[in-house]
Amino acid sequence: MNVTLCSIGDEVRIGQVINTNASWIAAACTAIGCTVGEHVTIGDEASLITSTLDRLCLVSDVVIMTGGLGPTHDDITKDVVAAYTHDTLTESAEWRSHLNAWMSQRGRELTERNQRQALLPSRATILPNPHGTAAGMLLHHNGTVLVVLPGVPTEMKAIMDQSVLPWLAARIAESTVASTTYRTLMTVGIAESSLADLLGDPSQFLGTSTLAFLPNYLGVRMRVGATGTTQQERNDELDRVCSYIYERAQRFIYAEGEHSLAEVVGRLLTERGETLSVAESCTGGLLGGACTDVSGSSAWFMGGMLVYSNESKVQQLGVDASVIDQQGAVSEPVAIALANGVRSRFGTTYGIGITGIAGPTGGSEAKPVGTVWIALAGPTVTDVHRFQFGNDRRITRERSVGAALGLLWKIIR
Amino acid sequence: MNVTLCSIGDEVRIGQVINTNASWIAAACTAIGCTVGEHVTIGDEASLITSTLDRLCLVSDVVIMTGGLGPTHDDITKDVVAAYTHDTLTESAEWRSHLNAWMSQRGRELTERNQRQALLPSRATILPNPHGTAAGMLLHHNGTVLVVLPGVPTEMKAIMDQSVLPWLAARIAESTVASTTYRTLMTVGIAESSLADLLGDPSQFLGTSTLAFLPNYLGVRMRVGATGTTQQERNDELDRVCSYIYERAQRFIYAEGEHSLAEVVGRLLTERGETLSVAESCTGGLLGGACTDVSGSSAWFMGGMLVYSNESKVQQLGVDASVIDQQGAVSEPVAIALANGVRSRFGTTYGIGITGIAGPTGGSEAKPVGTVWIALAGPTVTDVHRFQFGNDRRITRERSVGAALGLLWKIIR
Repeated sequence: MNVTLCSIGDEVRIGQVINTNASWIAAACTAIGCTVGEHVTIGDEASLITSTLDRLCLVSDVVIMTGGLGPTHDDITKDVVAAYTHDTLTESAEWRSHLNAWMSQRGRELTERNQRQALLPSRATILPNPHGTAAGMLLHHNGTVLVVLPGVPTEMKAIMDQSVLPWLAARIAESTVASTTYRTLMTVGIAESSLADLLGDPSQFLGTSTLAFLPNYLGVRMRVGATGTTQQERNDELDRVCSYIYERAQRFIYAEGEHSLAEVVGRLLTERGETLSVAESCTGGLLGGACTDVSGSSAWFMGGMLVYSNESKVQQLGVDASVIDQQGAVSEPVAIALANGVRSRFGTTYGIGITGIAGPTGGSEAKPVGTVWIALAGPTVTDVHRFQFGNDRRITRERSVGAALGLLWKIIR
Repeated sequence: MNVTLCSIGDEVRIGQVINTNASWIAAACTAIGCTVGEHVTIGDEASLITSTLDRLCLVSDVVIMTGGLGPTHDDITKDVVAAYTHDTLTESAEWRSHLNAWMSQRGRELTERNQRQALLPSRATILPNPHGTAAGMLLHHNGTVLVVLPGVPTEMKAIMDQSVLPWLAARIAESTVASTTYRTLMTVGIAESSLADLLGDPSQFLGTSTLAFLPNYLGVRMRVGATGTTQQERNDELDRVCSYIYERAQRFIYAEGEHSLAEVVGRLLTERGETLSVAESCTGGLLGGACTDVSGSSAWFMGGMLVYSNESKVQQLGVDASVIDQQGAVSEPVAIALANGVRSRFGTTYGIGITGIAGPTGGSEAKPVGTVWIALAGPTVTDVHRFQFGNDRRITRERSVGAALGLLWKIIR
């Protein structure tokens, strides 16, 4: 099942919004065994949409299109698709009644503008959209299936989950063509080239499988891909390659599959009946944000203090003002005092303290921008490290979050 | 200057990473007056890279490629580009000396693996990369320029900023072809279709210009585009269209250009000599994270409390336990108590309290998932609102941050 993606919208073309839809759809389709090919992003331009469809239809069983289904004048996808499939837009009674219900639930009138959302290509199968006024559509064209979805991510995802992915999965289950399954090993605390050296020459262990290294600010992911006609065959091969990798790199691997380090840390803390609180200076809430991004985090994440100003470090967490005067707010003793202070205030098993210079200002020769001290306080351990993360404010803050969770993971793993 | 983008990497193709590079490059090129066309994302596959280059070169003055320049075996872009331009990879003395310096600065040996990073197409112009071992490259092919960049965002951005964008800008300055300039008006507190209705029929005021509505969780952006041969001509037309929009929608517009609401709020607070602290429950640090994402936020953001558990709301901010028992942690009086409590603890001009049910669990009929109470406490005002954000945990948390900043903006604008 070859799937290609076509994202439509000037806002994506000129870079005003990031195309998160393409990656979400690609990951979801890959997970159920589709082979995802090219993603194309183009503007709201009828001739370019048409020529792109011509090209993608030649190499695809399914083309998934997103964007341009809104109620305003710049939304042209529906008109272009109707013309492309030699169809006309006619009012769908089914979708008109959805629109009526949608508006009356919200105590709003169905305006003339929103009524136009009921005009759909006459032969399109409607894919219900529980979160909006734009209908998803499935159309057949010369042996290729066109799936047309709104660009709003929640709406697109709901239609994919409810209609498109089950339909694709059913068609794949009937197929006997070879496909590829991927498994991802998540690492923390080692660089890409060191990891590659640790594993050695890939031709010695990969066989027909593939291995890719995907570095980001939190760690390196290793993605193994195995091809075969049955799931069993693919799983056996993935087991073989992964066990080779585990033998050499186990101490850096914190999860299989796309799990966040916060999720893994939370699961371990829950199993151990332990809790965490955080005191954040340069990250300003991002560590708490990462922890509470995990559903159910109230079982282990108790809360924390954002102590961005020096006064708040002293007044809220009892950091010694003379230590800040002598050694600076970004220093080993301040990080330790933050970790101990928040741990004792919140009565948690562990406390993490982060203090650093995110930049672009505030650096010095001794403490350049990117210097971050992170301390972990626990019942039997006080661990403190200095990191040097470079001069990008956002990356330094993200890497600080990853490093802090990494310190805790090493203790409780 | 027609620019197209080609992102290479199986990790992007299968959706394992989001293609933030394409939007960043598209926005940067659009800002200096390039016309950005198609973005294509493909896997690490030589024949597909070659056929994509064939197609893009036909319609582009410049093709910007990213990805596949790393030191591991799955990185093939350099080999493919060398073959495509009928060139060979030879060791660059210039880049070899950069690699030596890079490694010695870090106290590391130049391994055989990393030495290969010095092998470059012999006719390529090297675009220095201050943040990594992969060289950026500029090559000429049949009248089209190929720019080849690493996929790591910091490295790509540094090379774009230092080498590619100045080179493009110089070529554009020499050109007399019409181009398009965009201006974006950022709104908060109004839905896309209401905004469209407020402005009326676009054909009555747009003329040859374009207008697009870009909704996201924080508000709707309106992007106006004007085409002309001189910057003066384009600016005059943008002024005309935007003044029409301001007449009708000014009370919802918080900024021109891609500024975050936190940035605008921070600027206003700084001008007024006022400060902010926050007490976060369901957002768990994201509001603090958004505030401290703004460089210089220490002038106005003092810190805050993450009070995720009920105990911490009572113990850390003095919320009355009986109120939580009777009305629940997600309630009007608790939001007000959080805002007042953190304001008084941190001694700030304003305090914001957020308490809500992000989900997926914890909802009830009276308070479904997505219910969020947000309170703003200030010297002369206590403002409190109930929001209903839907059932997506992440979106509810993001929208809570936007709504909280929106409440403050309305008071201090």
